[in-house]
Amino acid sequence: MTTSIKRGRNFLHTPGPTNIPERILRAMNRPAVDFMAPEFVTISRSVFADLKPVFRTEGTVFLYSSSGHGAWEAALANTLSPGDKVLVPETGNFSTNWGKMAASLGVEVETLPGDWRRAVDPAAIEARLAEDSNHEIRAVMLVHVDTATATSSDVAAVRRAIDTANHPCLYLVDTIASLACAEFRMDEWGVDVAVGASQKGLMCPPGVAFTAVSDKAMKASQSAGISRSYWNWAERFTENNYIRFCGTAPIHLVYGLREALDMIFEEGLDAIAARHVRLSSAVHKAIETWSRPDGVRFNAVEPAERAVSVTTILTPENLDGEEVRRFAREHFDVSLGGGLAKLQGKAFRIGHMGDLNAPMVIGALGGVEATLMQLGVPLADSGVAAATRYLADTLPGHERSNAAFSRATARGTSASVTAA
Amino acid sequence: MTTSIKRGRNFLHTPGPTNIPERILRAMNRPAVDFMAPEFVTISRSVFADLKPVFRTEGTVFLYSSSGHGAWEAALANTLSPGDKVLVPETGNFSTNWGKMAASLGVEVETLPGDWRRAVDPAAIEARLAEDSNHEIRAVMLVHVDTATATSSDVAAVRRAIDTANHPCLYLVDTIASLACAEFRMDEWGVDVAVGASQKGLMCPPGVAFTAVSDKAMKASQSAGISRSYWNWAERFTENNYIRFCGTAPIHLVYGLREALDMIFEEGLDAIAARHVRLSSAVHKAIETWSRPDGVRFNAVEPAERAVSVTTILTPENLDGEEVRRFAREHFDVSLGGGLAKLQGKAFRIGHMGDLNAPMVIGALGGVEATLMQLGVPLADSGVAAATRYLADTLPGHERSNAAFSRATARGTSASVTAA
Repeated sequence: MTTSIKRGRNFLHTPGPTNIPERILRAMNRPAVDFMAPEFVTISRSVFADLKPVFRTEGTVFLYSSSGHGAWEAALANTLSPGDKVLVPETGNFSTNWGKMAASLGVEVETLPGDWRRAVDPAAIEARLAEDSNHEIRAVMLVHVDTATATSSDVAAVRRAIDTANHPCLYLVDTIASLACAEFRMDEWGVDVAVGASQKGLMCPPGVAFTAVSDKAMKASQSAGISRSYWNWAERFTENNYIRFCGTAPIHLVYGLREALDMIFEEGLDAIAARHVRLSSAVHKAIETWSRPDGVRFNAVEPAERAVSVTTILTPENLDGEEVRRFAREHFDVSLGGGLAKLQGKAFRIGHMGDLNAPMVIGALGGVEATLMQLGVPLADSGVAAATRYLADTLPGHERSNAAFSRATARGTSASVTAA
Repeated sequence: MTTSIKRGRNFLHTPGPTNIPERILRAMNRPAVDFMAPEFVTISRSVFADLKPVFRTEGTVFLYSSSGHGAWEAALANTLSPGDKVLVPETGNFSTNWGKMAASLGVEVETLPGDWRRAVDPAAIEARLAEDSNHEIRAVMLVHVDTATATSSDVAAVRRAIDTANHPCLYLVDTIASLACAEFRMDEWGVDVAVGASQKGLMCPPGVAFTAVSDKAMKASQSAGISRSYWNWAERFTENNYIRFCGTAPIHLVYGLREALDMIFEEGLDAIAARHVRLSSAVHKAIETWSRPDGVRFNAVEPAERAVSVTTILTPENLDGEEVRRFAREHFDVSLGGGLAKLQGKAFRIGHMGDLNAPMVIGALGGVEATLMQLGVPLADSGVAAATRYLADTLPGHERSNAAFSRATARGTSASVTAA
């Protein structure tokens, strides 16, 4: 008899890649095809076209065979020149790394310091831009959801801050961990370049990333001086599939994306955003319920700033977050994210985005709760029970009867349950 | 009754992507996983390690989520600075485009002109380098097999030319259409950077590309001045999976590559090269047999310079190569490549690399032959018959009996067939 054999499936709650629906895997499980032949050209054109409503833009979408980091570089290299200054509001490891990338491309990076526990402060951005009377700042680079800290910044409010300061800078937004999870409205919110990737809200394997580009950013790209070829919008601005993809198209991922877009439109972006709000609220309910000063607690201190796609949980002083991750993976088959950079060892992360439903979230929370119990972390109360109750109470279309049942259970009697 | 319904499978003979073995599709048909967890880290390390023997190098392999063009840029951006001069022997559209990419990154490109029908001339390279007494030329950029023209250049001979000229330049070689098809010996042939990709000899979907890097090139990268982040070797030189892959790892393609490498090692690189020689010889036999001055003919005029992975066939004056491609695809379900750049409309291409056997080649050649007949192209004789005969005669391990049968058939008698 051996206990090392695992049965059942893994609960993948890393903050990307996310769970890939069977439909998408099936769409990708096919032979290679001639990527210049009409059938594939038609499909790839439809993918380019249908990514626009996902970003809610009428702008131009470029698709790269790359990780999200590739699209980060594309956003910078096409809009900036060496020596240009950018303003990076610090949200966590991802704002820091995107800024480092800009610096490595010769851009002067000014960071608006943050403590990694709060979203960006639009007022601070407005103040800094108002000071910049010579308009030396060429771009504001915002990470919508910083996957390291799990804070979600107010993209529209930052746009208003730029406008109030009457500043002409470009507005670049990383939506890798928010696209097709949280509400995102590129055109309405005046975003000039939105960066996205395949492996989070889009439910596909990693390997494809996007830049959605406004007319203003396209114009800026004509004079941008960072050397580029693979990332170059000007070279990719065509309907020819070989040039558009800069080489052989990532055929299988394009088929995957086609299926993902169909699934996204079937559900609807608003419904997707609402589902992410509900499921993330369940996760937050669990953490709130576990929380004790000597136990686990939220990294993001402000409830309204907590991301709908990922949650970062701080561990007690004597417990390495990596230990939580390892234990959950090995003994409960729940895959979590680790603490990054200055949160390394001090946190773990639960991803909750993409193809996800209530029992998946409950199972994962149960695995985490059991792990924390095993590791001797004091818990104020059962988070998985609280999350389950929350999900019962908020079942869309069943609000009234659930509420009645909840009231009945809370009173410890079933005699008073009424239909109305 | 409708005749537009297609049955049977497509014969994919584009020169990349190539046919993906079922084993590789199955290896990729799996849920996403935590790419930082031990299981995947082990697999990805093994892929990095096992790519080395495929390049036949002890150097360093970098893997990119990108098309082959991405690895082209990585090879240039890590070894050169703006203003540096490179020598590009012209072999066809791919040498031209790689050169154009270098130019767009600020490199001064000197082309050694070629007529697109011959491989490079090592003597011309030697002469040019010998002239360059100030060593202004920083690198020679060679395309091993130019997929547009289907010429195969002698990588070892170019190395000898560089050595004879006693020139310290770097030697960059594009092996995208030769790796795991033709013989390639990076270290023995003194190649400093070899560029490869997943979708040809490696039998995987497109989306991953490689640079294999010598110590000399690694040293050069320390002072190379082209700005880079995603492609930067220095930033990727680590065992940390997040940094090594510059973001989220292309998990599914890494699983595919693991399976592909297993298959490559099972067959053996020498056997793979021999198989490609035999199958390409069958294709060449067919074209030779079809050839007429007023019909189709080889683009590559020198038999010894014809690639083992792809063949470019010139069409008669009055026939657009795209018409051959369209007809073969629509009526015989054979996917071919088209003529590129100055061969546009004047040629079509048969890819014959990767997961391929004799009946696949015969079927494809039959489809092409039937297409040419339908389009009224005069053929000297049946190429598919000649190719079939060639494949019968060269069946590995059966040379003697086949030869006896061939002799017997040639004589039109079976009485004289002997066992010995």
